Amino acid sequence: MDRPAVCQLVVALIGLVLVPPLMVRSQNDTEPIVLEGKCLVVCDSTPTTEPANHALGMSVRSGTGRIAFSAIRNTNHEPSEMSNRTMTIYFDQVLVNVGSHFDPARSIFLAPRKGVYSFSFHVVKVYNRQTIQVSLVLNGWPVISAFAGDQDVTREAATNAGLVTMERGDKAYLKLERGNLMGGWKYSTFSGFLVFPL
Amino acid sequence: MDRPAVCQLVVALIGLVLVPPLMVRSQNDTEPIVLEGKCLVVCDSTPTTEPANHALGMSVRSGTGRIAFSAIRNTNHEPSEMSNRTMTIYFDQVLVNVGSHFDPARSIFLAPRKGVYSFSFHVVKVYNRQTIQVSLVLNGWPVISAFAGDQDVTREAATNAGLVTMERGDKAYLKLERGNLMGGWKYSTFSGFLVFPL
Amino acid sequence: MDRPAVCQLVVALIGLVLVPPLMVRSQNDTEPIVLEGKCLVVCDSTPTTEPANHALGMSVRSGTGRIAFSAIRNTNHEPSEMSNRTMTIYFDQVLVNVGSHFDPARSIFLAPRKGVYSFSFHVVKVYNRQTIQVSLVLNGWPVISAFAGDQDVTREAATNAGLVTMERGDKAYLKLERGNLMGGWKYSTFSGFLVFPL
Repeated sequence: MDRPAVCQLVVALIGLVLVPPLMVRSQNDTEPIVLEGKCLVVCDSTPTTEPANHALGMSVRSGTGRIAFSAIRNTNHEPSEMSNRTMTIYFDQVLVNVGSHFDPARSIFLAPRKGVYSFSFHVVKVYNRQTIQVSLVLNGWPVISAFAGDQDVTREAATNAGLVTMERGDKAYLKLERGNLMGGWKYSTFSGFLVFPL
Repeated sequence: MDRPAVCQLVVALIGLVLVPPLMVRSQNDTEPIVLEGKCLVVCDSTPTTEPANHALGMSVRSGTGRIAFSAIRNTNHEPSEMSNRTMTIYFDQVLVNVGSHFDPARSIFLAPRKGVYSFSFHVVKVYNRQTIQVSLVLNGWPVISAFAGDQDVTREAATNAGLVTMERGDKAYLKLERGNLMGGWKYSTFSGFLVFPL
Repeated sequence: MDRPAVCQLVVALIGLVLVPPLMVRSQNDTEPIVLEGKCLVVCDSTPTTEPANHALGMSVRSGTGRIAFSAIRNTNHEPSEMSNRTMTIYFDQVLVNVGSHFDPARSIFLAPRKGVYSFSFHVVKVYNRQTIQVSLVLNGWPVISAFAGDQDVTREAATNAGLVTMERGDKAYLKLERGNLMGGWKYSTFSGFLVFPL
């Protein structure tokens, strides 16, 4: 299934604002060449597609599209005073933070650009008989919630996942909407990534 | 970590079906130019990669590759008659529907092209002591299932996630295979996106 | 929301190491042409973006970036002797294995390149009152864990998800850290995909 690292291109430039011939002729010319028109790009790195019909090579996973974070809770320390005040669920170990858009100190993800983002969370309550409700909060509004309400198990997780649209500058974090995390929330996770920009 | 918006290109065209020189010479020519051959594209938008070795710029996240949906259940209304008949699990709020391939009225996702799709679901039963089994149904066949069976908690979720291959026109939805959702399924979620086309 | 399959390109090549004119003039020439410089690629396949500012077409979802697997447990057969020795959680049905980087016999995923990978798992215990702990193990180290500890339900799942950075050759699998899966683990799932290479 592996594809070759070198791709074959068929570029059909139609309606081309042509390269000025003088520029092409002149060697070591550093002036810009502007090509403008329609193109068809066919790449043999995707041999199972129908390239002739659907082909187009332009990506949305461009440079600034590499956005991902993943954080876990590694200790059972009690919630901090800060945590009790804001009800933010804090994480203490960052596994992935490509683009550095997850603020480890505040456990908040800040969207660097508009797009569809995927989030997943899993908040564990430990030795705690209270029901908890955890929400993924987007700009102050809960959008996705999860519950853990069993009184008889040592560890139970409020877990959910989903996609949301974020604008540049939007913030996402996890909030404890109900119950408490006395006893800690070791093994909890929170992760997200840009699925594609809009 | 942000990358510049302008990328640097090294395009090595080998075995090129060359641009007819006459076309290049003639100014304001609008006939197509066809370049055919191998290429190496190196982009400085990804400075952490080893571009010299692995470089190739062609994307699979092309225009038609932006496919994603996310839906939630926002009320605890009883299952409708329609729901009782088909056992489809309906959602009443759509968070994301890029490409409009999720039919909100029927809560069915219709794959617009062949590819690997990621799905995630989380179906909450509320005030209900029955065990439920929820399946992600692909063209009528259950492929991924989840259970919620605790009798003593107010809310419990049948949750799972996974990847499946879908052909163009394939349908995916959530079905209640066992139990019932009397009392409603508020806070349930269902989401999916195209990981890459095939 | 669908985009046309043909994209419109504006390629501005600035600071170009120009195509040697002799090469361009000679027809049927098979020597490489090297274009080196800055480029701006604007694609109408993404009409909702701000192409003039952010535009760049180079992808990270290149040919070798199509990496995904998804496996499920389809039977309740007892854990094998092999399973009892290594505590690996084995799956018996592969839904997706693009790139063949998931070894079905050993239920181990081998990363073919450096990148950010997303994993999701859901391990069901059946008719079993013991608490189980399941970990996603990366090169021998548990990175993400989940628990299932209810004694009174027939089926309960230890489920979690997250992103990790893997180097080429890194291995990921699921390990039963605590408890046992006597009675089987039908309906369990394990899936992963490359979010983007690094």
